[in-house]
Amino acid sequence: MSIAEIAKRSRIAARELALASRGLKDAALHAMADALGTNGLEILAANERDMERGRAEGMKPGLLDRLQLTEGRLAGCADALRELAGLADPVGEVVRGSTLPNGLKLTQVRVPMGVVGMVYEARPNVTVDAAGLGVKSGNAMILRGGHAAEFTNAAIINALREALAGVGLPGDSVQTIDPLGRDGVTELLHARGLVDLVIPRGGAGLIQTVVREAQVPVIETGVGNCHVYVHKDADLTKALPIVLNSKTHRPSVCNAAETLLVDAAIAPDFLPTAFQTLSDAGVKFHADARALALVPAGIAAERASEEDWGREYLDLEMAVAVVDGLDQAIAHIQRWSTGHTESIVTGSLGAAREFTERIDSAVVMVNASTRFTDGGQFGLGAEIGISTQKLHARGPMGLAELTTTKWIVMGDGQVRE
Amino acid sequence: MSIAEIAKRSRIAARELALASRGLKDAALHAMADALGTNGLEILAANERDMERGRAEGMKPGLLDRLQLTEGRLAGCADALRELAGLADPVGEVVRGSTLPNGLKLTQVRVPMGVVGMVYEARPNVTVDAAGLGVKSGNAMILRGGHAAEFTNAAIINALREALAGVGLPGDSVQTIDPLGRDGVTELLHARGLVDLVIPRGGAGLIQTVVREAQVPVIETGVGNCHVYVHKDADLTKALPIVLNSKTHRPSVCNAAETLLVDAAIAPDFLPTAFQTLSDAGVKFHADARALALVPAGIAAERASEEDWGREYLDLEMAVAVVDGLDQAIAHIQRWSTGHTESIVTGSLGAAREFTERIDSAVVMVNASTRFTDGGQFGLGAEIGISTQKLHARGPMGLAELTTTKWIVMGDGQVRE
Repeated sequence: MSIAEIAKRSRIAARELALASRGLKDAALHAMADALGTNGLEILAANERDMERGRAEGMKPGLLDRLQLTEGRLAGCADALRELAGLADPVGEVVRGSTLPNGLKLTQVRVPMGVVGMVYEARPNVTVDAAGLGVKSGNAMILRGGHAAEFTNAAIINALREALAGVGLPGDSVQTIDPLGRDGVTELLHARGLVDLVIPRGGAGLIQTVVREAQVPVIETGVGNCHVYVHKDADLTKALPIVLNSKTHRPSVCNAAETLLVDAAIAPDFLPTAFQTLSDAGVKFHADARALALVPAGIAAERASEEDWGREYLDLEMAVAVVDGLDQAIAHIQRWSTGHTESIVTGSLGAAREFTERIDSAVVMVNASTRFTDGGQFGLGAEIGISTQKLHARGPMGLAELTTTKWIVMGDGQVRE
Repeated sequence: MSIAEIAKRSRIAARELALASRGLKDAALHAMADALGTNGLEILAANERDMERGRAEGMKPGLLDRLQLTEGRLAGCADALRELAGLADPVGEVVRGSTLPNGLKLTQVRVPMGVVGMVYEARPNVTVDAAGLGVKSGNAMILRGGHAAEFTNAAIINALREALAGVGLPGDSVQTIDPLGRDGVTELLHARGLVDLVIPRGGAGLIQTVVREAQVPVIETGVGNCHVYVHKDADLTKALPIVLNSKTHRPSVCNAAETLLVDAAIAPDFLPTAFQTLSDAGVKFHADARALALVPAGIAAERASEEDWGREYLDLEMAVAVVDGLDQAIAHIQRWSTGHTESIVTGSLGAAREFTERIDSAVVMVNASTRFTDGGQFGLGAEIGISTQKLHARGPMGLAELTTTKWIVMGDGQVRE
């Protein structure tokens, strides 16, 4: 099938899905979860085929690990679907409304986007998540999960489609375009009028390609060069755990901190201990001259190049700079941030206020770990990604961010004077 | 100056503007309004140069009329700026918030987009509107107002920039790229990372070009193939004024109706009178076979071609079809609508409910004229355009739609377990 044909089927499915009650959608989510169990053997066998091919093609261990499904992981995917069923339905929520002087009654109501494309990289759990989020938010999903996971995704999507049909929802609510390869992605990104939104999820390269190619609306997600700034009035007993947690709790994800900025006034007190503690956790450093001078003997650190301030290491590496106060810290962040998450550690109300007002990132924190930028942590219930753009959604995206609105105007014969 | 240099200046201005108090921004709007008065002679002289060139180049009367400024029109522009000063400031509005179980306090707050580009067609009043909406919403605007209005726009923007500087806000809050010509527009649309949003406002051709070219986020505005559907249970004494108002109140704008659908059951009662009344108002018809049979003698009407169902006439012309009930009406609209505004006239609660649920347009009306789709009519206070896309904004866009949000997280040393 061509993208046009696939998208047409999605549109038909989307129209039905948009009218489905919460009860029916939740029943579908439970059926989808059950189907992952009953089709477990087929799915794991398909995954083994992908794994074998991956190994044969020399795929990196980290990527192989993301690709691999186990019985436990599959059960985790099923649990995520059941949790989605427990969340409130975003569709139908009244966002605002009023009665106009002429008696017209206005309500702005959440409705599904319609047909949503998702492009990601060989992570079968994302296939399940995206399908589930689509069903719950009433959107028909077109999924491109990457060549390396093609067998796994096909088996998962087969199972989910059967489950959907079993409860009376269209199987075309979830379709894959993996068999169409890269050309399919390009066509998807050009399918103006057929696709309402495409969300790329993955590394910076994938996201840049999608954004550059796309003629359909896109939400950029996830590149995070996050900063922690330890202000001179910081409580250093709080600063150290925040820096450690931000950097080392899960270094491979976008909300991990990549750069540490420390005020010159407290750097001699704070940095040696911080270097030691982070180093004990396996962190390597790229430091400016003033920070480098405070690295304890026996800890390896290299002089940071200009490039380091802009890098998203996604690993146990950190850029460290000493700054001469709030203005310099803000200027550094304004220059190098990707607009994801920045955190100040301070006891000063004035500094906290100025930092939160002047830093223009999706999430600005005071005295907290950058790792909290997460849909689950924010109480959004589920997350389809973290938007680093300003249009439509900014920060963690949950079910509401997969909807648009429409205005309903109820009149009694009103015409405009 | 290149677009990169212009956008850099805009970014610096945007940072200052984002922190400006409502008091300062409102003072700026009043100063801008005053400046249109004190610089009135220069602006009108510049406009006369544009008009002369327009006449010499054979510009159409309708376009010349849109281009022309008079003392009265300029005063109207100034009034619009003063009205903006009276509106609430969208910046700083708390959209939602919560306290998490771990004590973190979350608030999602409206903040300006940053740098917003606007591309439109030789309408000097849009220059003033866009500048005013930008200042009020805290966004630095980069304006491309069309070659044909270049002298007028330059004179207006000079006056507005002086007024901004006079109250202590950056003059670069409003910049023009008219001198850079079409290449400037292309560069603007490719300025990823420098420009946060571009809004095209004008005809379908302009909007399509912008959307196809753009690598920066874009909001599509304004193409409206709006439908009025007269259901069999309609109160025909209400239906007639609604159809007449929707079509003839101001035929050249996007919320004017272009297609009339009438249930077969009432077509013999309704259509002859409707044709007569609309014809008396100067409307010409493109009707399907069944509607054509109901056109009274002496009224000219041609057989509608397939193409007519998709046309936005923007003139005293209307496509008319007879349908066999709600399902067929909805199917027709689903096929041909541009997703702007559709209205049903009915006394049936069930039909109203089904129409509003199944029609996926920015605005869906019951028993009201399509002409009400308008920021001012909706009580949004000001309007920068009507979005027909689903991402970020849908329907009339006011000040809030020119903002994004950021999450502020206030902690006391929290780290993630």
